[in-house]
Amino acid sequence: MASQGKKLINDPNAVVTEFIEGLVETYPGLQYLDGFPEVKVVLRADYASAMLDKVAVISGGGSGHEPAHAGFVGEGMLSAAICGEVFTSPQVDAILSGIRAVTGPMGCLLVVTNYTGDRLNFGLAAEQARSEGYKVETVIVGDDCALPPLRGTAGRRGLAGTILVNKIAGAAAATGLSLDEVAAEAKRASEMVGTMGVALSVCTLPGQVTSDRLGPGKMELGLGIHGEPGAAVADLQPVEVVVSHVLQEILSPDTNYVPITPGNRVVLLINGLGATPAMELMIAAGKAVPQLQLEHGLAVDRVYTGSFMTSLDMAGFSISIMKADEAILQYLDAATKAPHWPVGVNGNRPPAKIPVPLPLSHSAKSYESLSRPQQLSEQGCLLEVAIEAAVIAIIDLRDNLNEWDGTVGDGDCGSTMCRGATAILEDMKKYYPLNNAAETVGEIGSSIRRVMGGTSGIIYTIFCKAACAHLKANTQSVVTSKQWAEALEVSIAAVSKYGGASAGFRTLLDALIPASAVLQERLNAGDDPCTAFLLSSEAAVAGAESTRHMQAQAGRSTYISSDILATVPDPGAMAAASWYRAAAMAIKNKYQVHE
Amino acid sequence: MASQGKKLINDPNAVVTEFIEGLVETYPGLQYLDGFPEVKVVLRADYASAMLDKVAVISGGGSGHEPAHAGFVGEGMLSAAICGEVFTSPQVDAILSGIRAVTGPMGCLLVVTNYTGDRLNFGLAAEQARSEGYKVETVIVGDDCALPPLRGTAGRRGLAGTILVNKIAGAAAATGLSLDEVAAEAKRASEMVGTMGVALSVCTLPGQVTSDRLGPGKMELGLGIHGEPGAAVADLQPVEVVVSHVLQEILSPDTNYVPITPGNRVVLLINGLGATPAMELMIAAGKAVPQLQLEHGLAVDRVYTGSFMTSLDMAGFSISIMKADEAILQYLDAATKAPHWPVGVNGNRPPAKIPVPLPLSHSAKSYESLSRPQQLSEQGCLLEVAIEAAVIAIIDLRDNLNEWDGTVGDGDCGSTMCRGATAILEDMKKYYPLNNAAETVGEIGSSIRRVMGGTSGIIYTIFCKAACAHLKANTQSVVTSKQWAEALEVSIAAVSKYGGASAGFRTLLDALIPASAVLQERLNAGDDPCTAFLLSSEAAVAGAESTRHMQAQAGRSTYISSDILATVPDPGAMAAASWYRAAAMAIKNKYQVHE
Repeated sequence: MASQGKKLINDPNAVVTEFIEGLVETYPGLQYLDGFPEVKVVLRADYASAMLDKVAVISGGGSGHEPAHAGFVGEGMLSAAICGEVFTSPQVDAILSGIRAVTGPMGCLLVVTNYTGDRLNFGLAAEQARSEGYKVETVIVGDDCALPPLRGTAGRRGLAGTILVNKIAGAAAATGLSLDEVAAEAKRASEMVGTMGVALSVCTLPGQVTSDRLGPGKMELGLGIHGEPGAAVADLQPVEVVVSHVLQEILSPDTNYVPITPGNRVVLLINGLGATPAMELMIAAGKAVPQLQLEHGLAVDRVYTGSFMTSLDMAGFSISIMKADEAILQYLDAATKAPHWPVGVNGNRPPAKIPVPLPLSHSAKSYESLSRPQQLSEQGCLLEVAIEAAVIAIIDLRDNLNEWDGTVGDGDCGSTMCRGATAILEDMKKYYPLNNAAETVGEIGSSIRRVMGGTSGIIYTIFCKAACAHLKANTQSVVTSKQWAEALEVSIAAVSKYGGASAGFRTLLDALIPASAVLQERLNAGDDPCTAFLLSSEAAVAGAESTRHMQAQAGRSTYISSDILATVPDPGAMAAASWYRAAAMAIKNKYQVHE
Repeated sequence: MASQGKKLINDPNAVVTEFIEGLVETYPGLQYLDGFPEVKVVLRADYASAMLDKVAVISGGGSGHEPAHAGFVGEGMLSAAICGEVFTSPQVDAILSGIRAVTGPMGCLLVVTNYTGDRLNFGLAAEQARSEGYKVETVIVGDDCALPPLRGTAGRRGLAGTILVNKIAGAAAATGLSLDEVAAEAKRASEMVGTMGVALSVCTLPGQVTSDRLGPGKMELGLGIHGEPGAAVADLQPVEVVVSHVLQEILSPDTNYVPITPGNRVVLLINGLGATPAMELMIAAGKAVPQLQLEHGLAVDRVYTGSFMTSLDMAGFSISIMKADEAILQYLDAATKAPHWPVGVNGNRPPAKIPVPLPLSHSAKSYESLSRPQQLSEQGCLLEVAIEAAVIAIIDLRDNLNEWDGTVGDGDCGSTMCRGATAILEDMKKYYPLNNAAETVGEIGSSIRRVMGGTSGIIYTIFCKAACAHLKANTQSVVTSKQWAEALEVSIAAVSKYGGASAGFRTLLDALIPASAVLQERLNAGDDPCTAFLLSSEAAVAGAESTRHMQAQAGRSTYISSDILATVPDPGAMAAASWYRAAAMAIKNKYQVHE
């Protein structure tokens, strides 16, 4: 169904001048000639110094192929880009203005895509400029490999391979070569490159209706870059198959368009046509490289993946292959300030992948440290008692938790918590290193992570791992009560930061935050640790009960009305208060036995 | 109408791993951890040397936002990127593997986008890594300005502003700052940036059906980057209006999301959402800058325009504004090897536009040289005679040319040529500098260009300008017959090159090429110039007549059958032979009078 194409533009007739205005706002190294709307020429802001001793390199053509060519203006690549209206060759006067603006005594090379309009307009501008005394050469690029060789004036279209020719010409000029030499390098490069495109959609010209030429599930092969129909329409295939077909066409010995034979070195350009996400271009690149290597026997020296020469908002890509040698690679690798020439594609290619590193601790700690000690220290005993009491409290509270959660959530809080509690109980007996408090707390986190799942599982794992990390970094063999209190504070901070909840959000923090506060307060006041822990656990229970009057700020409960919420406490807060209280009571009882 | 989204992919479940494979093929500075499919971590290939004395900076999240974050891995920016499945937070183990791979004694900063899944998974990985002995800090970025401030855990979403935070964190780490200092810089940057998006289309998840949520002519404002519905749907507006609305929302004093007030300096990020052509992004940038300056009183220090954090193939963009100061600018400007960080955006901003240069010759030559001389030289006389005869021959041949062209083309060849001829006759009398052969030939080209139009007009202009340039560069006041012959050869070469035709293509070249060949041959053989020119003109006529038996290779005639073509000669060739012959006859007659 054809429909008015949607574009984020203003006046469809002003898209090119407004593009140029935005371009120079973005890149301070670019300027334009003050001749809108007829003269649309982007040039290096440092053209005046450059033109003294270097050949100027100019390219251009119809617009709609951004970033080509204006985005490739810069030291080491183009001196100027001449922009026509969308898909329309620029006027001779505009081209002439560009030549006059950037051409010095060394002269100027025009790199022209092989379309009749571009050839004639750039050709006339070249001859006019020569008659004005400028030294001008032109190189015409026709890299299209989609159509069979035709006799006639049209010849092969200029496609994305032009970008590589522009880079080589610009780099050759930057080395100080003469005009004839720069033109010779560009011409040689133009004869080494072949291109073919694949599209999934037709482009929409500004202000026009989108064609529905390509139906669902179809792709077009060997298309032009102006919405011209492709050489063939086919069913959409996996991109691996599409890439394989395109590479075979470009490298076909029947057409013999590019002088590339097995054993040669090549560079590969995967060019998005305007609306193709980077992900898809990279997938194509990842498939093209091994195919070139294994099926065509070619060494791939460089890969350029991105959007270089587009067709407005067309979905699809073109592939260009250029035969490479040391000279061409040096020109392609040479530094440039052209903003859209890709960076980071040069350099030695290390192995693509490296092994996943093992945890530091696995390599450092012996296996024995991860088994229950034969003999428990005093602290190990206390820890075992506290953990056991805490998990049994959760197991006992299972049905209540499920019931409360059924009112405000999905009713599985008790089951989920109980799953974690059961795992802790079993794992502790098997291998918790109870004489090492930090490691034991860490292992509780691992048990929880293994079985609990859901947000509560990850929250409790964070809680335990944060405590473990703090204890490891800050304690010796015996953990003081003050250090335990600090660990609790750190764990609460981590849960708050990563879970996003604070006090009053109707979460487990509404039990733990008051508990932490009272614990520190009582310890600071000089209470004995056991008493402080007990008082703190009473604060946890009170805090959990108080959640009845809180609005939910996290999770599913946020969708429940306050009337219903008020009938139950937050099950997460109640669970936290419950295990905390049970642990405190167990410690108290243990001490009483000792006393 | 919802339809299966078209994508150039293979297995929809393997898009992320295949993306990473293509990414490292493209950028040799990147590697990945060999843990597919669970562990999808891209890291600096030089991580081993980097981790010794610098804080590592890691970011990541669900995929589908390419080039974020993997494309921003490189010296000076990210040490590693952790890639989840499309729009799915990466697993804790993958994040942990990334931390272990790149974190040295200086520690590691995790820059996390504010989504519950990312926060919890990165948070747990951070705590786990800490418990393994790593120094880890996290900064959570929530730069979304689209929704009103909400109480609760969700908070503002992390959008494209995260890219700026990553750059600042990476640059801070590269200077050798400590982990706490790097984290502080990143946190400060995260509090300075606000973002809002606009979409024209909904993205398509690999292997899924495209939603038709957004109808024709509609846009969505304040969207997320995962296809979440935006804050509002509105009629599509000119992009200037859209930009204005978005800037007002970001800078709104009601929400007060970013601490930016008039007089501040800012940087601007225009971010394509995946299927937005560079042209549209630049147009938006070109509108946003003056609005920020004039309507909001802000100085715009940097503009970043491109695709940084996309939503698969969504059409649209987001705008981010960050408050800038010297420290932030230095971090943003600092060199990086991250392949997708934009280049060429720093540096002094010269005037955006410069005057269109005038032609060299206008400034150099006096006005008098462009008027008909009072007294003609001998060569001037001959030139006048030849030109007059040539154009009169064309005027006389008008109807025949139209008739021949009517058989094979659109029937206006005679009228078009006659228009040029008449202009030449008039202009010659007025101002051709006939004593200067080179300039006169150039002016013939200018007369033709002014009135003729069409391909034949531009071809003849090229013909004259090429001859003019050659004569100017290679002759003194009197042009020798040999120099005229060379000029003819150069002109033919230019027409052939830019027009694309060769001998036998049924064009004017089939008259001129034999004429040029005979002229050179006879002059080399020692004939007197007048005789050589006459013999040459006979070759032109014979050549033109021979076009009857040629297949057309250029222009409209290519669509005509050979039977019809054989009934007439090519009108362009006949016209060329005719003026050439007339000029030769006129010279001959002039010499005979003198003899």
